Amino acid sequence: MDQKLILHEYTQSGNCYKIRLTAALLGLPLERREYDIMKGETRTSDFLANVNANGRIPVLQIGNRFLPESNAACFYLADGSHLIPGDRFDRADMLRWMFFEQYNHEPNVATLRFWLAFIGEDNLNDSQRSQIASKRSTGESALKLMGEHLSGRDWFVGDEISLADIALYAYTHVAEGGGFDLNQYPNVVAWLARVAAQPNYIPIA
Amino acid sequence: MDQKLILHEYTQSGNCYKIRLTAALLGLPLERREYDIMKGETRTSDFLANVNANGRIPVLQIGNRFLPESNAACFYLADGSHLIPGDRFDRADMLRWMFFEQYNHEPNVATLRFWLAFIGEDNLNDSQRSQIASKRSTGESALKLMGEHLSGRDWFVGDEISLADIALYAYTHVAEGGGFDLNQYPNVVAWLARVAAQPNYIPIA
Repeated sequence: MDQKLILHEYTQSGNCYKIRLTAALLGLPLERREYDIMKGETRTSDFLANVNANGRIPVLQIGNRFLPESNAACFYLADGSHLIPGDRFDRADMLRWMFFEQYNHEPNVATLRFWLAFIGEDNLNDSQRSQIASKRSTGESALKLMGEHLSGRDWFVGDEISLADIALYAYTHVAEGGGFDLNQYPNVVAWLARVAAQPNYIPIA
Repeated sequence: MDQKLILHEYTQSGNCYKIRLTAALLGLPLERREYDIMKGETRTSDFLANVNANGRIPVLQIGNRFLPESNAACFYLADGSHLIPGDRFDRADMLRWMFFEQYNHEPNVATLRFWLAFIGEDNLNDSQRSQIASKRSTGESALKLMGEHLSGRDWFVGDEISLADIALYAYTHVAEGGGFDLNQYPNVVAWLARVAAQPNYIPIA
């Protein structure tokens, strides 16, 4: 990597952690800039104009270019490495799990963690409160599907770790903060341990 | 493409249309199998066991392998073609817009279309009804961000059409079904016309 890499982030966010974990497994140095999302530091006019018009972290800065969306940033870092399968079907299947993560998993498993462990249930508005049950149920379905897929497999795609595992690991391993009981998914628990045993693994914080 | 391609789909779904449009622009033949999602045809035990355990369409079948997630299926079809940029940053930036589409755009722009134009507002439950205002507002923010990004640009990434444009086109061009007023986003309207003018373009239905 010729250009300096800067991660604009909030440490406790699983979406930010994905990128740090990808960089760590690849041995890539990453400079870090912390923003407190609880204080709106990613909604300032400076942030919107210069880092991400969408007002969200993480953003991976590559030289003077800015790349939002956690899974796209992981793809940038891992492009050409062993974390992206060489086989055409497997490469698309890796992306399949990464899109599943952002559509079926993160809005439920990560959002309930954010609502319950960071904002606090008493501070939720009525619309949020009305969605807790459906997010619980959809999040549990996502974890169940993951457990079934991992039956007899070590990794989500092919025979080695890929970005699919990293993307899904980020919020799964802290899902208990959102009230999910991981012991119901023993294949998932075993897979989490395999990810954590990777050389150069780093914890979320 | 050596193996037969079969799209398991529901014609009116923008997620399914993305895959048909990608195949059309690339000149790839695609066999189609229609499921009526309004009648639960993607939740049958046969579908769950043999097509997609997640109970969703689209699924792209490649020979005897099955690939869920619309944007992953588009990536499979376009891998190695001009619809995926050769430049490393642009390739990741294309994925950035595809993840944006699934996270910020589809759950709002597509869901309101589904709720209002397909299910009907009178048939929504209380939780869905309580989310209409926030989905309207988040969907409008997504369309506004798209319009701002397209200022002075013809395409989302680089100088030619890519999967980012195809993914975002699918639900944007039918957003009025969800009550969105596209005339508020003239750059978006101009870009929609550029996509529709592509050689081999096909309409949603």
